[in-house]
Formats: sequence, structure tokens, C-alpha cells
Amino acid sequence: MAKNLTTREEDYSKWYNELVLKADLAEMSGVRGCMVIKPYGFAIWEKMQAELDRMFKETGHQNAYFPLFIPKSYFSREASHVDGFAKECAVVTHYRLKTDESGKEIVVDPEAKLEEELIVRPTSETIIWDTYRKWIQSYRDLPILVNQWANVVRWEMRTRLFLRTTEFLWQEGHTAHATEDEAIAEAEQMMNIYAEFVENYMAVPVIKGLKTESERFAGALETYCIEALMQDGKALQAGTSHFLGQNFAKAFDVKFADKDGGLDYVWATSWGVSTRLMGALVMTHSDDNGLVLPPNLAPDQVVIVPIYRNEEQFAAVSEIANNLMKELKAKGIRVKFDNRDTHKPGWKFNEYELKGVPVRVGIGPKDVEKGTVEIARRDTLEKEFVANEQVVSKIESLMQEIQENLYKRAFKFRQENTTEVETYDEFKEVLDGKGGFVLAHWDGTAATEERIKNETKATIRCIPLDDNVEAGSCMVTGDPSPRKVLFARAY
Amino acid sequence: MAKNLTTREEDYSKWYNELVLKADLAEMSGVRGCMVIKPYGFAIWEKMQAELDRMFKETGHQNAYFPLFIPKSYFSREASHVDGFAKECAVVTHYRLKTDESGKEIVVDPEAKLEEELIVRPTSETIIWDTYRKWIQSYRDLPILVNQWANVVRWEMRTRLFLRTTEFLWQEGHTAHATEDEAIAEAEQMMNIYAEFVENYMAVPVIKGLKTESERFAGALETYCIEALMQDGKALQAGTSHFLGQNFAKAFDVKFADKDGGLDYVWATSWGVSTRLMGALVMTHSDDNGLVLPPNLAPDQVVIVPIYRNEEQFAAVSEIANNLMKELKAKGIRVKFDNRDTHKPGWKFNEYELKGVPVRVGIGPKDVEKGTVEIARRDTLEKEFVANEQVVSKIESLMQEIQENLYKRAFKFRQENTTEVETYDEFKEVLDGKGGFVLAHWDGTAATEERIKNETKATIRCIPLDDNVEAGSCMVTGDPSPRKVLFARAY
Repeated sequence: MAKNLTTREEDYSKWYNELVLKADLAEMSGVRGCMVIKPYGFAIWEKMQAELDRMFKETGHQNAYFPLFIPKSYFSREASHVDGFAKECAVVTHYRLKTDESGKEIVVDPEAKLEEELIVRPTSETIIWDTYRKWIQSYRDLPILVNQWANVVRWEMRTRLFLRTTEFLWQEGHTAHATEDEAIAEAEQMMNIYAEFVENYMAVPVIKGLKTESERFAGALETYCIEALMQDGKALQAGTSHFLGQNFAKAFDVKFADKDGGLDYVWATSWGVSTRLMGALVMTHSDDNGLVLPPNLAPDQVVIVPIYRNEEQFAAVSEIANNLMKELKAKGIRVKFDNRDTHKPGWKFNEYELKGVPVRVGIGPKDVEKGTVEIARRDTLEKEFVANEQVVSKIESLMQEIQENLYKRAFKFRQENTTEVETYDEFKEVLDGKGGFVLAHWDGTAATEERIKNETKATIRCIPLDDNVEAGSCMVTGDPSPRKVLFARAY
Repeated sequence: MAKNLTTREEDYSKWYNELVLKADLAEMSGVRGCMVIKPYGFAIWEKMQAELDRMFKETGHQNAYFPLFIPKSYFSREASHVDGFAKECAVVTHYRLKTDESGKEIVVDPEAKLEEELIVRPTSETIIWDTYRKWIQSYRDLPILVNQWANVVRWEMRTRLFLRTTEFLWQEGHTAHATEDEAIAEAEQMMNIYAEFVENYMAVPVIKGLKTESERFAGALETYCIEALMQDGKALQAGTSHFLGQNFAKAFDVKFADKDGGLDYVWATSWGVSTRLMGALVMTHSDDNGLVLPPNLAPDQVVIVPIYRNEEQFAAVSEIANNLMKELKAKGIRVKFDNRDTHKPGWKFNEYELKGVPVRVGIGPKDVEKGTVEIARRDTLEKEFVANEQVVSKIESLMQEIQENLYKRAFKFRQENTTEVETYDEFKEVLDGKGGFVLAHWDGTAATEERIKNETKATIRCIPLDDNVEAGSCMVTGDPSPRKVLFARAY
């Protein structure tokens, strides 16, 4: 298994980077901090998009598209938003280049300076609420349930493939409602949809909760989130959904006439997940042999590799492979027969292991004789010989089994790496030891939160939305705490 | 029918703008030249995307994603490309804003100036070929058949919704091949796929051909195109596919080892269609009552409008409507039952006519009595009563009929508005009279082409790839011409 992959034990961060490159998911481009998403990585992202898009549409959302550029002044309108987003961003100042006097270089044309600079969107609340003002007059125009799939740019100093890049792809939902309750219900619904997607498709268990005030989205009254735990014991925020109150409606003067003829500001939500999910997928399931993909998102769920020494053997093996492929396709299973003669079976085995294909089927001359094939599952690396007539049903049930096994394994890992502590010493000990999620009492103040962050690098990932609400006292100050909250060091 | 829509006769350009706005397809945003694609317009674009994406994948292409930003220096590498694309473009010069001394304004931070300016991609050949250098070593790595769906920016001075906007959405295919023949075959294949899509889904007939040298894509050796004719007699380029030779491989030093161990530059193509197709769709079929959509691309193919005066009637009508909806959905037809009580039937009839829904079904108390419904088709505006038991099959066949009728109507229009001329006087007379496509002999020189353009505003749309290759002499210079070429004034 010469994959030359650093092991997780040796250096988790290096393992991750190498894996993303070697599995052909993505690579850094010639543009600082911007990645190229390669076809194999993009095929996984497309599967994610397709499922999320279906879930959004089933809950009444429609897609639309808003401009890439936002005039600088828009950001100043919502006071807290400007601090959160208008700082580290790409600024367009000119709209023309010209050839310089030497005739050899192209330079920015100073004549073509924009009167007002344009910001490449880091998020689209401002431009969208500027548009909604034109769309909303009456309660009849509400709710507006719109989503957009888009690229956004946040100028990051330290970047990592998928996890933190200057440009990334995401979806951002932006909804407008007549009532506060309806907006809150929408924000909660979208958190639940994200959780359902991440758990059922990505096989990544998540904890739903609320962000503390200091971790909230700039301009939100409440930020709902889902938090996942990676194999190195660090947390990753997998999605957020914001209840924005009337902040953006007020900033952009969006009012509606209610049924009784009164005028009120519109209530808002926004919610998003990004290509960061690709990082979560890789870091949750993959191992020292490479990527491990859940069947629900694998571009190829099954790959068939022929083993042969001559044309005759190849013909016999191919016949079985082609039949099997046809039957699997009829069951809706995504299967590929890799009959390239440019690569050896060993190379192919290695390749598909690295790329995380859930099930590999090997067929050689001996199998032809015996009427069997060899089936290897990627999650457990187990192999077994299966009689031809049982292969299809075996693979069908493996699709579900592997999907479930990955979820269970990740869930078990999270259980084992979630620790409840009572004291600040215990807290620090756990963080520096096994890591993972740590549940502890906190007094609810930003000051204590800040102190913990400075002293331990752990942040409050969320105030979980579960029933575990036993009161106690803050591990740092001893002040009363209504419930334990979820801490971790995070990506 | 008080739609307050300017008629095509009165002012075609105004009619188009009003229609795009009133049918909720798109609107201009607060950002100069950038549009907002509204949910209804975007739903049509999504249908287009889905079909094209399927066609691309069926021919072996995969999607990927490349950076939004391109370093300025990349454009200088391919000599003709820089003139074509690096001029009117959005230039990112800074990566940070800051609050000014007053603490009230946000301004560009002069400290955060980029060493090299970044261009927001107007097209991605340069950044992609810079990437392909890393992907291609040997003939085994070829062909690369990659497409990306992306936003691009070209700084346009005069903009029109969908037809010419600063930012637009498109797909751009970029392929790499071991041989010249293979690359040419790919470029031709993609032109054919575009033609198939535009004719079969958009119901817009096109003429396939080659661009003249002066109309070619900057950096291409050959540009294949499909040209459509709008109702006002102006041409619209609906898609282009470029054979790029080895120009980009040379500019970015992309070589491969062939089977015999020799090193050669890689052969390239690129091809794209954009949201401009939305403009072509609107301008080909729509009428003075609003949008007319081909069933293959209509977000709603059928809408059912209930007519009633009381709850009892509504219940009876709804039962029939719900059954019909279920049956139509089972046939794969996209149907909507508009049972909103906030709008009157007359308003709804008007609305769906404006929005181009192919078939409208009206059901009222009299229909309930008689066991009929009223069916109205949008293309011909014909109405008829149909017995309940025949409704489903009637609608099913209407889907095909309307699709075909729209194509035939557009084809007939094009035939009637394509004129062959022999003299330059005739040529000018036709252009200033009925307009449309004009076939005429041309001597093949850029000078004559330029003169015709300056004198008549008509350009050579393409050298058609058909069998009509009778030689003659140029209408302007009298010099020999191997065949007539296609002229028009164009969007």
C-alpha cells in the first residue's frame, strides 16, 4: 500500500493536506488563497448540492442570483455587519487596463477609477435587502424564500484547502417574513435541514445549538449552528442559520403593509453551508489509506477492476463485469468498470482505496472458474468472495451498511471524545489531553468566554439545544449557570 | 388584457425590457450593469443548465471549479488574448477596508495594496491552462474534458438585461487533447450539442457556421458558432466553440510525452453559452401579451386556475383540480394549482399569460356540472373545452405540439427573413427594409468586411457550414467568393 501518505498519528494536518491533493479533490491555484476544485472533488460537491437543493425546494425555497459586487457604502448601513464583513475583502477600484507606453506591459488605467469602490461579496445580506425593498410592499409579497448558490470572497491570511480559502463556494438563503415567530421558525427549520443532510448524507453526527453573542453572525439576533467533531479532536462548524430580526429591513428600509393596513419592518433570516463541508467529510471518515466516502455522496459507489493476463481472460472477466454493471445500474447504483489497459490491477486497487470508493469488486480468471467475485469494502477494508448470483443483493445491502457504519463509527468517536467537566483544571486537562468536545458550566458573560478562549484556545461551539439542562456554577467564576455549554478548539 | 406592455411594433427594445421586468425574469441591481436574476427567471436558467449539463456529461465531460481571480500577468502571456479580454474588466487592487479617522466612513486601506492586481475573470483560459500544466505530463493524462459553471465579468458600457451585462453566468468548457484532429472534432461536437440544445429545448432554430478571422475569439484558430434570428430581424450569437490550436499550451508551457516518448504541446478547445440565451428565448417566441415559453423549459408547464363564488364551489372545483394535478404529475408534467384566495381568476389568467405558462386550465362551477375543463394554450391563445376523461391525454399531446409549433413558427419566420442578394445595393435595401439574415458573396478580406460593417452596421455572422457552396463574386469588390456568407445586424 505505497501511498506515501503521512499517517494521522504522525501529523494530522499534513495527512489532511496530502489526502486532499492525492485523492484529486482540490489543489491551491496560482492565485493566493484560491483553490482549484478538481473534477473528482467537484463531483462530490455536486452530490451535496443536489441533495441540499432538493431539500430547500421541498421546503418551498426558490433559487435566484444576486450581483457579485457590492458597493462599499452598502456595508456601512448595518452597523455590526460592517465590522464583521467589510474588512478583509477584495476591493475593485478600477474597470480598465491598458497597454503602457513601452507597448509591452499591461497596467491599470488610472482614468478608469470607480467613483465608489466595489466589494467582492463576502456574504450578500446587504445587496439582497437592497433588492427586497423593491420586491416587498404588502403582506401578500411575503414570505420570500430565496436561496442562491454562489462564490464568495473573504481575504484570509492563512488558508487551507476547503477549510479556509479566500474564495469559496456556498449557498446562502435569505428569507423575508411578516412575523418574528415565522422568521425564527424558518431559522430553526434550516438548522434542522442542515443537520439532516450532514447526518444522513455525509454520515457526520452533529450537535445543534445556539451561538453565544460573541460568536454570532454580524447583524444576527440569534445564530443557530451545527457542530461536528473531527478525528483530531477539533470541532468544525458545519452550518449556520441566522435569525436577523429587523436589522437588515431597518438598514435598507424594507417595510410592508400588514392585513390591517399598518406598516412594519420585515423580519429576516439567512443561512449557509459551504465547500467547507468537503473538509468535514474528509476529516471525519478518512484513514491512513486515503479517502473514505459515504455511499450517499460517492461519485462512484462501486468500481469493478478486472484481473487478467491475456485477451481471453479479459474477455471472460469483462462479460461478467458488464453484466454486473448493468444489473447494478438498474438498481440505481453508480458503478464504474475500469477496463483501462494502461494501468495494472494493483495500481487500480490502490487508486480506488485512495479515492474512497465504498465498494471494490475484483474479478479474475479464478473467479470466472468458481463463479465468484471478490468484494472489498472501503470502510472496514474487509474482503470476501461472493457467488455471482448473490453479488447484486450483497452490494445493495452494503450501500446501506457502509453508510450506517460510517455514521455509527463517527458517533461512537464523538461520544468517546465528549467529556463533561466540573472544574477549570479538569477542563484544561481534557483539552490538552484527549481533546474533543468538553461540556462545562459557564456564567453566560462575554468576559469569561473571552478569558477561557485566551487561556485555552477553546471557544464555546454552541449552547446545545438538547434537554440536558441541569443548572450549576461556572467552572471559572463560580457564578450560576443554567446549563453546561459545548466547548472545543475548533477549525 | 391590461398588461400595459409596449407592443413589439411600437418599440421592440422597450417591449423586451418591460417584458423581462414584468414577467419577473430579472431586473437591474444597485450595482452598475449587474442584474438580479429573479426566482422565475432563474428557474428557467436552471432548466437550461440541467439539460446542458446532462448533455456535457453524456459526452464524457466533468465539472470542476477554477478561481474567480486571475493575476494580471497571466493575460499578457497569450498575445492576442490580452487585447481581446484584459481591457474592460474589473480590477482588484486592494484586500482590506478600514474605518477612517472620523470613525464613520469605511475607506480602502492604502496599506493593503496587492503587489500584482487581480482581474475578475472575463473568461478562464489563462488560469485553467496555468493549472493544466500541473495535470498533464503524458498522453495518459489526455484528453481532459472539463467544464465549469461560473460567473464572469466584462465591464460593459451599455448594458441590457440578459443580453449584455457586466456580470453574467455561463458555462465554459476547456479541453486538452493529444492531437489536432481530436481537438477540432471536440470543438465541432460542442457546436453540435449547443445547436441540439437550442433547437430542441429552446425551440430556436440556429445556423451553424464559422466566424471570420476578425470575429474570432481572441486566441482561437477557429471559432464555431450558432446564430439565431430574433423577431426584430436582428441576429443573436447563441453559443461559440473555439479550436485554440496550441496557443494556450505554448503560452503556459503545457507539453505532454506521447506514446513514442516525444514531447509536444497540447491541443485545446474552449466553448461556452451564457445567460444571454435567456434573451434569445424571450425575443424568439414572446408576443405582445407577454412571455411564451417552450414546454421543455417552462418551470410550470400547466397551471390550473379555479373559478368559484363560494366555499362549496371551491371544494367541488378543487377536487377535480387535485385529481388532475396528481394524474399530470404521474405523467412527469410540471403542474401548479393556483388556489390562492388573495387573487381573482382574471388576475391569474393575466399573470400566467404574462409569464408564458404553456397551458392554462380553468375550472368553474359550470365545468363541474358538465364534466369539462377549459384549456388555453399560450402559443396560439386558443381555448377549448375538454371532457374530464380526455384532459390528461390532451395536455400530454399539447406539450409536444406546443414545443413543435414554437420551433416551426420561429423557423418559418427565419426562412421568410433570410434573403439572398447579389448586389451591394440590394444588400443595403434589405437591411434597411425587412432586415433579417442576408446571404451575400464576400471576397474573404477583412478590409471588405470592415467596410461593410462601417457602412451598414451589418457583420458577418458566420460562414455557414451547409452544402450551399455556389461560387460567385463579392458584392462589394467583385472579387471571387467561394460561397455566400451570412450577414446581419446583430445584438
